[in-house]
Amino acid sequence: MQNVGLQLNNIVELLDTNNVQAIQDVFADAHPADIADTLESLTPTKRLTVWLQIPQILKGEVLAELSEGVLRDLAGDIDKEQLVDSIKSLDVDDIADLVHDLPHETLEDVLVAVDSNVRDSLDEVLSFPDDSAGGLMNLDATVVRDNITLEVVLRFLRLKNRLPSQTDSIYLVDSDHHLTGVLPIDRLITSPAEDLAITHIIDNPVTFDGLDHEEDVAKAFADYDLVSAPVVNENKRLIGRITIDDVVDVIREQAEHDIMAAAGLNNEADIFAPVIKTTRNRSVWLGVNLITALLGSWVIGLFEGSIQELVALAVLMPIVASMGGNAGTQTLTVVIRGMSIGTISDQNVRNVLIKESLVGVLNGLLWAVVIAVIAALWFQNVHLGIVIACAMVVNLIMGAIAGVLIPVFLEKMGVDPALAGGVALTTVTDVVGYFSVLGLATIWLL
Amino acid sequence: MQNVGLQLNNIVELLDTNNVQAIQDVFADAHPADIADTLESLTPTKRLTVWLQIPQILKGEVLAELSEGVLRDLAGDIDKEQLVDSIKSLDVDDIADLVHDLPHETLEDVLVAVDSNVRDSLDEVLSFPDDSAGGLMNLDATVVRDNITLEVVLRFLRLKNRLPSQTDSIYLVDSDHHLTGVLPIDRLITSPAEDLAITHIIDNPVTFDGLDHEEDVAKAFADYDLVSAPVVNENKRLIGRITIDDVVDVIREQAEHDIMAAAGLNNEADIFAPVIKTTRNRSVWLGVNLITALLGSWVIGLFEGSIQELVALAVLMPIVASMGGNAGTQTLTVVIRGMSIGTISDQNVRNVLIKESLVGVLNGLLWAVVIAVIAALWFQNVHLGIVIACAMVVNLIMGAIAGVLIPVFLEKMGVDPALAGGVALTTVTDVVGYFSVLGLATIWLL
Repeated sequence: MQNVGLQLNNIVELLDTNNVQAIQDVFADAHPADIADTLESLTPTKRLTVWLQIPQILKGEVLAELSEGVLRDLAGDIDKEQLVDSIKSLDVDDIADLVHDLPHETLEDVLVAVDSNVRDSLDEVLSFPDDSAGGLMNLDATVVRDNITLEVVLRFLRLKNRLPSQTDSIYLVDSDHHLTGVLPIDRLITSPAEDLAITHIIDNPVTFDGLDHEEDVAKAFADYDLVSAPVVNENKRLIGRITIDDVVDVIREQAEHDIMAAAGLNNEADIFAPVIKTTRNRSVWLGVNLITALLGSWVIGLFEGSIQELVALAVLMPIVASMGGNAGTQTLTVVIRGMSIGTISDQNVRNVLIKESLVGVLNGLLWAVVIAVIAALWFQNVHLGIVIACAMVVNLIMGAIAGVLIPVFLEKMGVDPALAGGVALTTVTDVVGYFSVLGLATIWLL
Repeated sequence: MQNVGLQLNNIVELLDTNNVQAIQDVFADAHPADIADTLESLTPTKRLTVWLQIPQILKGEVLAELSEGVLRDLAGDIDKEQLVDSIKSLDVDDIADLVHDLPHETLEDVLVAVDSNVRDSLDEVLSFPDDSAGGLMNLDATVVRDNITLEVVLRFLRLKNRLPSQTDSIYLVDSDHHLTGVLPIDRLITSPAEDLAITHIIDNPVTFDGLDHEEDVAKAFADYDLVSAPVVNENKRLIGRITIDDVVDVIREQAEHDIMAAAGLNNEADIFAPVIKTTRNRSVWLGVNLITALLGSWVIGLFEGSIQELVALAVLMPIVASMGGNAGTQTLTVVIRGMSIGTISDQNVRNVLIKESLVGVLNGLLWAVVIAVIAALWFQNVHLGIVIACAMVVNLIMGAIAGVLIPVFLEKMGVDPALAGGVALTTVTDVVGYFSVLGLATIWLL
């Protein structure tokens, strides 16, 4: 790769030798995203030192590239006036993104600082939820009336001198600002200049409503290979434009959310945040886990007498719980993914349940035979082997059923399956695993 | 949203009533990505019926949109000649992607069927690894000599009539096909036509080497908001062009891989694959899990005598194992993410280890107190409470250390941390959890 990235170790070295001039030189030619990466790799105390060496003109864009946790921390350390100065010259959608993540008074300060037309635009974008098409849109669409020729369009563009980034099409509107269609730039430059613009438009373009969810927007961009797309209000009037660079951020954030949520973490988790803060953030999840673990222990506690009689049960019961949890997690993962990309819906969830249960039965039988042989040989007790085997089949089927039903149920309750699904599932497979091993043993063996 | 998606339930209904004409009508105006979604939501037997109703002209693009598992299954059912016919008219990068996922003889058939210039292009793309910039590139770059005026460029584009999709810039080369620079389309149309093209180029554009890894390409596209970028060979000669639509696919596949791998699943896992096939695919992972679970059981088995003396140990030990696993998974998740986005490197991994260990100590102490009180009250045994508390601290610190070191070690060994990290970590926290509870109890209590 050429012209990509920064040398982080250089920056750390320059910091250690307090060579701020050299840092300024490195940053002068750097891309804001690379500077943001550098900041994220540093401890909080070093971040402020480095921040002060960033050219003023880049500071806003660097802030826009930072992850939420790092942004909030750093913004708390920066002089308020300088913060507003850095932000106010950004694109409206970037300002909107930033003020969502910053304390409310920052928004008020920014609204006072910007020009009145930017303020109006910002009001418009901020009137939509953060995770909607409206919250994602910018107001920099290149718009022309639909009754002019391509030559006039070209002359108009020449006057503007520069087009907004990611402009792959011009939007045509009627006299009431209703979107007539979309004119791709390549048609504009390859078609006869005397033609009317309207004869070269795509007349059924993908358009978004301001309230569409950003995940649906992302799916449409990915499916239809879009670079930009118009946003319209309920009266089909053009209100903004969404571009692929912001959609890519949505896709990356969504992916990060799914991975982090499974461990009870926020996207904003900052690897270099202070120890106390991280401890506090993580402790909540561990508390939830303790409660679910106590539930499993309570089940074991019901069978103390059985364990005392046959200690092998205590040795083998975690295997059944763990296998159920693993098989169930496989089902859960596939189902959550299917629900999020849309291949699983109310129409076919019954098929999925039947299939996953059958897979649970087959894998249950397979590993039941294996564990039965191991248990029987280990403890010289064939009956114990049979008990463990039966418990294994029960728990793998339970894991499959829970793996399908838990995410479906959570989704209907409005709870994020990526966050709560794993905990709920392993609670079920632990409880059922312990209960089936110890219960069956108590009935059959003791 | 407008002009987005298909009604899946309509298709299912039409299938049930065998109304193939109506399905053909729905597909006639549909986007290939939507048809692919529909196919993925159906059971394998229905897929072939629906496939036959897809207009021939769309079939190749539908195949290109299918996930690997569904593609392979469906391709096995399609007449070979028809398969090659569908594929051969696609873009070269799409053909290359498809033949990577299909049996080797398909490639040979395709190479025979395509024109000789497409064959040469295909050879070029296929000479690079599937997950490299070269494997991702297309050969449709719009290229002009660097010594002509904008007017000549515009006339050339008019002659071509259509530009390749996602063309936001024209590439300028010298007489040896070395890349001189990149001319953004907006500069082309807003600058004076008599200017030399070379005066309006971006002279330090981001370029990729054919062997760059696709994840680095994806990061650069996201960081620098690229729509397309040139690929050059080691002599800086232009060999191709990467576009954002393919990069979006890389980002989505990578995210899916990370989520699926954590449950031991392939990206290609098809939710509606036959039960036997799914059982077989998943059983491998369950086998790995069984071995790690047996390791935990072996540790418990070492202390059978202690458990018989104090059954409460069997009741409480899973809590310690589970809490260590959860805390460790939090660390592991943050570290894997930090490594993949580049905020964690050899330079600062020591800082991360110290910080995570401290978090482990603090959360260990917090939950040690809680579990000590619960255990002491439950079993009326203060000493038992103290033992469990100490084991909790030990295991949470162990979880933190393992959460940092395991992914670093796996990465150095060339093993995917997203796949093996979770299993390795919970094996450590299970073994250490059981050992510390039972070992400390054996020394202090019995």
